[in-house]
Amino acid sequence: MNYQAILNEIYEELQPELMRGRVADYIPALAEVEKGQFAMTVTLDDGQVFSVGESSKQFSIQSISKVFTFTLALDIYSRELYKRVGVEPSGNPFNSLVQLEYENGIPRNPFINAGAITITDTLISHYKDEYKTLEVIMHFVRQISGNPKLSFDSAVAKSEMEHGDRNLALARLMKSFGNFENDVINTVMTYFKHCAITMNTEELSRSMLFLAFGGRDPISKKQFITPSQAKRINAVMLTCGHYDASGEFAFHVGLPAKSGVGGGIAAIVPGKMSIAVWSPALNKYGNSHAGTLALEKFTTKTGLSIF
Amino acid sequence: MNYQAILNEIYEELQPELMRGRVADYIPALAEVEKGQFAMTVTLDDGQVFSVGESSKQFSIQSISKVFTFTLALDIYSRELYKRVGVEPSGNPFNSLVQLEYENGIPRNPFINAGAITITDTLISHYKDEYKTLEVIMHFVRQISGNPKLSFDSAVAKSEMEHGDRNLALARLMKSFGNFENDVINTVMTYFKHCAITMNTEELSRSMLFLAFGGRDPISKKQFITPSQAKRINAVMLTCGHYDASGEFAFHVGLPAKSGVGGGIAAIVPGKMSIAVWSPALNKYGNSHAGTLALEKFTTKTGLSIF
Amino acid sequence: MNYQAILNEIYEELQPELMRGRVADYIPALAEVEKGQFAMTVTLDDGQVFSVGESSKQFSIQSISKVFTFTLALDIYSRELYKRVGVEPSGNPFNSLVQLEYENGIPRNPFINAGAITITDTLISHYKDEYKTLEVIMHFVRQISGNPKLSFDSAVAKSEMEHGDRNLALARLMKSFGNFENDVINTVMTYFKHCAITMNTEELSRSMLFLAFGGRDPISKKQFITPSQAKRINAVMLTCGHYDASGEFAFHVGLPAKSGVGGGIAAIVPGKMSIAVWSPALNKYGNSHAGTLALEKFTTKTGLSIF
Amino acid sequence: MNYQAILNEIYEELQPELMRGRVADYIPALAEVEKGQFAMTVTLDDGQVFSVGESSKQFSIQSISKVFTFTLALDIYSRELYKRVGVEPSGNPFNSLVQLEYENGIPRNPFINAGAITITDTLISHYKDEYKTLEVIMHFVRQISGNPKLSFDSAVAKSEMEHGDRNLALARLMKSFGNFENDVINTVMTYFKHCAITMNTEELSRSMLFLAFGGRDPISKKQFITPSQAKRINAVMLTCGHYDASGEFAFHVGLPAKSGVGGGIAAIVPGKMSIAVWSPALNKYGNSHAGTLALEKFTTKTGLSIF
Repeated sequence: MNYQAILNEIYEELQPELMRGRVADYIPALAEVEKGQFAMTVTLDDGQVFSVGESSKQFSIQSISKVFTFTLALDIYSRELYKRVGVEPSGNPFNSLVQLEYENGIPRNPFINAGAITITDTLISHYKDEYKTLEVIMHFVRQISGNPKLSFDSAVAKSEMEHGDRNLALARLMKSFGNFENDVINTVMTYFKHCAITMNTEELSRSMLFLAFGGRDPISKKQFITPSQAKRINAVMLTCGHYDASGEFAFHVGLPAKSGVGGGIAAIVPGKMSIAVWSPALNKYGNSHAGTLALEKFTTKTGLSIF
Repeated sequence: MNYQAILNEIYEELQPELMRGRVADYIPALAEVEKGQFAMTVTLDDGQVFSVGESSKQFSIQSISKVFTFTLALDIYSRELYKRVGVEPSGNPFNSLVQLEYENGIPRNPFINAGAITITDTLISHYKDEYKTLEVIMHFVRQISGNPKLSFDSAVAKSEMEHGDRNLALARLMKSFGNFENDVINTVMTYFKHCAITMNTEELSRSMLFLAFGGRDPISKKQFITPSQAKRINAVMLTCGHYDASGEFAFHVGLPAKSGVGGGIAAIVPGKMSIAVWSPALNKYGNSHAGTLALEKFTTKTGLSIF
Repeated sequence: MNYQAILNEIYEELQPELMRGRVADYIPALAEVEKGQFAMTVTLDDGQVFSVGESSKQFSIQSISKVFTFTLALDIYSRELYKRVGVEPSGNPFNSLVQLEYENGIPRNPFINAGAITITDTLISHYKDEYKTLEVIMHFVRQISGNPKLSFDSAVAKSEMEHGDRNLALARLMKSFGNFENDVINTVMTYFKHCAITMNTEELSRSMLFLAFGGRDPISKKQFITPSQAKRINAVMLTCGHYDASGEFAFHVGLPAKSGVGGGIAAIVPGKMSIAVWSPALNKYGNSHAGTLALEKFTTKTGLSIF
Repeated sequence: MNYQAILNEIYEELQPELMRGRVADYIPALAEVEKGQFAMTVTLDDGQVFSVGESSKQFSIQSISKVFTFTLALDIYSRELYKRVGVEPSGNPFNSLVQLEYENGIPRNPFINAGAITITDTLISHYKDEYKTLEVIMHFVRQISGNPKLSFDSAVAKSEMEHGDRNLALARLMKSFGNFENDVINTVMTYFKHCAITMNTEELSRSMLFLAFGGRDPISKKQFITPSQAKRINAVMLTCGHYDASGEFAFHVGLPAKSGVGGGIAAIVPGKMSIAVWSPALNKYGNSHAGTLALEKFTTKTGLSIF
């Protein structure tokens, strides 16, 4: 299939959509990103890369980082992890305290904020220290992305912390239920740091490739996790990857994927490829408006879908 | 692959599990079904059928019928249907009124009770009459199952109605929000009738085959719905098919599937096959205990999974 | 104290407020009542009556009737009644199903719709029959009001029933929890009938007098309930009498009182008097806008308050 | 009336109840208080004091301190205070985050934890500093109690803080909604300090006297707040003073009162007297078991009630 032609077509068709939606504006660092930008990259197992738009422009991956920390925690804790976080869709806006309270401080899944903060907490417990933890996370994303220089944007992380009261409330609530082990402030800060990792679509697409191929990066030949773990992470991306629009996304796109408020979405086609798309203006669910449409067009045009 | 051998293996391995869990006991007709029974059938596109256990014993398909009514309604209304019912996982026990009230009488998806009752209501609006509607539903399940004599168990339907106050409350609540068009009692009665359809695993497996093959039954060569509609139904089965354990099911089994409180589960492997399993004792989420394990074993042993 | 002068003063001061707020418009029969009307009556134990405004104009007492049915049920069932309905403020809009579901079908108090329907259900269980029950209710309100010809407006009751889906849903939900004994439709219809009783402020004020005097009407000398029961009804009026603005009302007015969406409010000053006020335009909580202000002015000017 | 005789009678009748219920055990300092203790004091406007039991034994007043901080804040901010905290009963367990989230961070009333923390926050904003604020609070309670040496138990406050995650979560959540002005940790610590004030029933009874007499202590002749403010505080005690059993308390006792998990309850009879009772074992709502019964007996025996 001529993926480059398909990407070009999508890019052209989406021009009228690029200015629609709103850039995340709860922190200044994200609010100042210009609308109208777009990039999309497809990476195949043989190393072929197809891109369109501003595919070398860095953006804040935000919640997409939750896939990487979940991967690390699953590798360390295996089934034990599910004592502290579930794998069910939340059925509520992504940062609600209500469900967390009704369910005794056990977050529904690793991709809602409470769950991702719990995952960070489990990593800090394992590595004893939040600096070591952040180092391990950065080492991992540098490996899977193929870019040894990847880093996170401290200004974004700091700004998130300044507006981080709701996430701190979530962490405190989990602590009150006994589902929190480390210092609340340090843990949430570490969470904001890994959310502030910046990538471009080429790096992000490459980073997801191991999940499309049973936990093994087909280019570097490194096996990061077991095939069974990779399948399970993909299942959670499908059912929980897009906040309260996960069902819609599965319905319209039909691929395991994870979005972030920075406007990025990373998706995989099992056994075939990984895809990253970026466009900063968000729809009402907090997912990239043009990014979601681009993936829907991609699966329609290619017939690729897991269903 | 030797599917018969795999089914035999699963059947043997599951012996110690068959008595675990509880048979649905909210109505006498279901409560008297004996624990310990098990059947499983795989149907391939070339008509090959592999079965194990009591595969010709009839059971009440209950909520699995929601897949068939959703199929009919989607075919009639297409996108218009989503004005009346969503496609998001519910994140709450399957018959809760709470979410329905907060979301103004629009059920989250067609597989929770409120959503399935709405679907029945849309069918009655289209066919003008509840008897005609039931006839159309029965005609359709007879076609897809290949059994022209399939029927529903009136005693079960009547018994459900006698204990149907919660479902009537759901319907009334939707009516109070303006999301209900026909007589409440008649519509809920029609819903209970299609839930009371009885099948064996061979018929149920065959009934799902069109969903595994883009809406076209590969045996009868009939195209019931478009490939795109089939994919979407599969997506909703994956994200919403197992009440509040849909995430768990996707995580452990990794196939689009729908369960019923009669102990049946119907699943598909896109492009490959359909599977039906039945064992009446349920786990705490209301899904067949041994049935869920059987499907997990099946995907582990065969390596089949959509992820 | 010169009550007539005080009422005249209040009437004059409230002129600018009479057109503010909205008349209840969920049923046509209530929607067509003209804004701007006002009446207020004070009744003392020696039979003195002071009125201002349209005090002989009939209006629909609506939820105020819940005080009278609660009185009858408390007299019949005494402490047993609390197995079926509580006495706690609801902290939620007056007809919410959410709380009812979380609390297993036991309504929080007899003045929210669910609670009042339960009370009607207990009366029908006692009197065996809904017609007999309605007769008993009408006989009671005729006695306490001193008007043997009081009746209810069938057109209003019928219209309520046509828009009664939410109340029917509440009744069904209670039935699903086992907290409902009679036919849902007949019981809710009986409830709507007693809500449709019409009175003027003179009759309504007189009707409440027995609650201000330990359960004994000081004019007719009839003892309807025990002093202890009267105190308890007054306590429930204070904590639950004004939907989700009961705290505000206690705070600003400081008297046990009950409001209805027809624009009436009935209040008592223990040991001193009863008061009725009517003005059809409602504030955002569903209580008479001018009526609430009139009572606030009355307690400020007279210094009467239970606190 | 012979109050001493009535107190003696109550004390005797309650002997079989004193060991029933559970002492608050979420912090060690409260958990080690011995069950079976009881004290009750009535204070009249002429300075007469009637006591029974261990009326000079100090206990932790806990939530009763919320009455005193609300008094101070109402005096400073008047109507402006209601922008930050409501006066409605909560209808939910006393420390639930759910309602706070649905109502955008505005606590329902000053007596639930969130509301009392907000009140402390408003005081710190006014006095600029948490030490000054605590000084003002202590000065006030020393004045109204007539004991210039009253203090708080630092060990209790520290222990509360160590188990204070839920209260910190409440504060963080309010901050995320913009309804919090000072440092979260310092404010919650100040809140725990005033909750840790220790009094005996004689001091506590005396402290409430000004609320029974229009804001003026009839013994010291000091006017602390206006009569109208006193009435409003009494109204909030009646509707919200006993967590989720406020309706029950109004129903059975019929007096404005406030309870604390230390086992104390302070009540007033407007224009007549103040009453304090203490018995550390709590009922299922978190209110003193024997204390509640003692007040119910007191109003039954004396006929005193506001209704």
